[in-house]
Amino acid sequence: METVTLSLAEAYALSCRVLRENGFNDAHAASIADNVTAGERDGCASHGLWRLLGIVGTRRKGKISGEALPVVFDHAPAIVRADARGACSLLAYARALPLLIEKARANGIAALAINRCVHYSALFADVEPLTQAGLVGIACTPSHAWVAPAGGIRPLFGTNPLAFGWPRAGKPPFIFDMATSAAARGEIQLHLRSGTPLPPGWGIDREGLPTTDPQAVLEGAMLPFGGHKGSALAAMVELIAGPLIGDMTSAESLAWDEGAGGAPYGGELVLALDPARFLGDAAADHLARAERMFSELQAQGARLPGERRFLARQRSEREGVTISRSLYDDIVALSRAAP
Amino acid sequence: METVTLSLAEAYALSCRVLRENGFNDAHAASIADNVTAGERDGCASHGLWRLLGIVGTRRKGKISGEALPVVFDHAPAIVRADARGACSLLAYARALPLLIEKARANGIAALAINRCVHYSALFADVEPLTQAGLVGIACTPSHAWVAPAGGIRPLFGTNPLAFGWPRAGKPPFIFDMATSAAARGEIQLHLRSGTPLPPGWGIDREGLPTTDPQAVLEGAMLPFGGHKGSALAAMVELIAGPLIGDMTSAESLAWDEGAGGAPYGGELVLALDPARFLGDAAADHLARAERMFSELQAQGARLPGERRFLARQRSEREGVTISRSLYDDIVALSRAAP
Repeated sequence: METVTLSLAEAYALSCRVLRENGFNDAHAASIADNVTAGERDGCASHGLWRLLGIVGTRRKGKISGEALPVVFDHAPAIVRADARGACSLLAYARALPLLIEKARANGIAALAINRCVHYSALFADVEPLTQAGLVGIACTPSHAWVAPAGGIRPLFGTNPLAFGWPRAGKPPFIFDMATSAAARGEIQLHLRSGTPLPPGWGIDREGLPTTDPQAVLEGAMLPFGGHKGSALAAMVELIAGPLIGDMTSAESLAWDEGAGGAPYGGELVLALDPARFLGDAAADHLARAERMFSELQAQGARLPGERRFLARQRSEREGVTISRSLYDDIVALSRAAP
Repeated sequence: METVTLSLAEAYALSCRVLRENGFNDAHAASIADNVTAGERDGCASHGLWRLLGIVGTRRKGKISGEALPVVFDHAPAIVRADARGACSLLAYARALPLLIEKARANGIAALAINRCVHYSALFADVEPLTQAGLVGIACTPSHAWVAPAGGIRPLFGTNPLAFGWPRAGKPPFIFDMATSAAARGEIQLHLRSGTPLPPGWGIDREGLPTTDPQAVLEGAMLPFGGHKGSALAAMVELIAGPLIGDMTSAESLAWDEGAGGAPYGGELVLALDPARFLGDAAADHLARAERMFSELQAQGARLPGERRFLARQRSEREGVTISRSLYDDIVALSRAAP
């Protein structure tokens, strides 16, 4: 496969240019470019530069604002709200983050509800800044109704990712970011692009029968991970990042899209918990006990969630990121200035 | 199989008597009896009357206080702490609950950290009272190190249950309560009691090889549900209901037990979120949108988490609960007054 290697600065600059030329203002272009570059850098291709195709596609379909600036509200002692006003979630998150951190430190725990946002980014990027502030973070968001509940036959839930971050002194944070579906939607689309069958258990066709054909799953339904338990978690995400914060379920998001094929639209819930507020002077001692658990996990040969991502990050910072020539050409072609 | 049927009042009275005769004071005996009767009533045998054997066993091993009364602290604007002082979690939870509810309503979200508790009860009982107060509840607790991480070979995590409750106007709440292990420890012990093999995927033997022999899994390691994702969730529970609240990990709990075979000891984290505080006057409208999701789920033939439990509850309230004669005899034999 022919490939193109870009430095992180080049990947960011290309992303910014393409986004600005497609109607995103400087603030939105910068935050989205930063996010997709970070995804590619961290070895997460399904949330990397490839996402530019979808985000620009959503813009061209009129399903995302490239201009609206978010409004942040101090809603309750432990609740921050951010109205993204139809634009991307990332800028709303960034502007609400300082108040979320302040409230978590003051109260011990706080919640951020982002509303009316297009969510198209990897959730690990929404917990990592909390860990950098020494906080524990949990984030989740519905998507479009693509996933059948366990025991069901039709799409109802989104891929409904759940991310968790834990701060570690002097080390990369412990972070996981998992779809509650068996796979991320993007992974199925990458299989379709590459013409490879899906692993079993990822989805069912329109008749509700198991299949490994990516196209049949995209037309049928994806499945939750882990059977009834994953399905229950998907429902939890629907509820707490949907109706609880006054925003859409995945079914409502898909209906709102009206078949345009745009990115999911709705809300995101982020929780922040402050170990220092829970533990006071004993915080360092207790966090050291968490480190012993991580050491034992690694001593068994098991992998720490996020470990691979931080290794990829170090490599990408040295060597840049490598994507297929066809993806590179597709991205460049998004530029209105390009031939 | 010979069976014994008890009314709920009889099951509760028997439980209370056995507990009091084994050194639990009235307050602890009542809260534990209420919990195991509720588990049996709700069709959850692994958290039903059978648990009396374990709780009394833990008492006889000196690993639980039957007398110590919990102390509740107003720790931070959105944090309640309850020190169970080596006794059962249930009384600490009950005494801290009013302040947790008050803080959730005032701030939008609040956390309860229960410390130094023996946790031996079904977690659904720790979110249901929140739903009755109109709140969303999330609860989790480590246990003993019985579960190997995905990719690992030795026990490190507990069965680390996670429970979630969502209030529904005029209907039983939406509640799930799942071990992050493939099965609950109690289910494996029930297989051992009945001499039946385990379903594949529940555990590995001492050499790290898959097995369906309950005894080999009890001596080896249980497995998380859903591979790496379930394993990541188990780690999250360890962290947020362990070091974050200044309490033990599952490995530390097992070390503390010193081979006595007592119940897990450590902390529990409960989060409460108030839809009314998030949504204000629009709460009823948004909660109605959650109801539409539940309706669609049921229309597909999928089951609502907790549905089976509430059906069992209705039946038990009419007909009582039926347990095996051998379990009944074992429980009665716990009574010091019995022959």
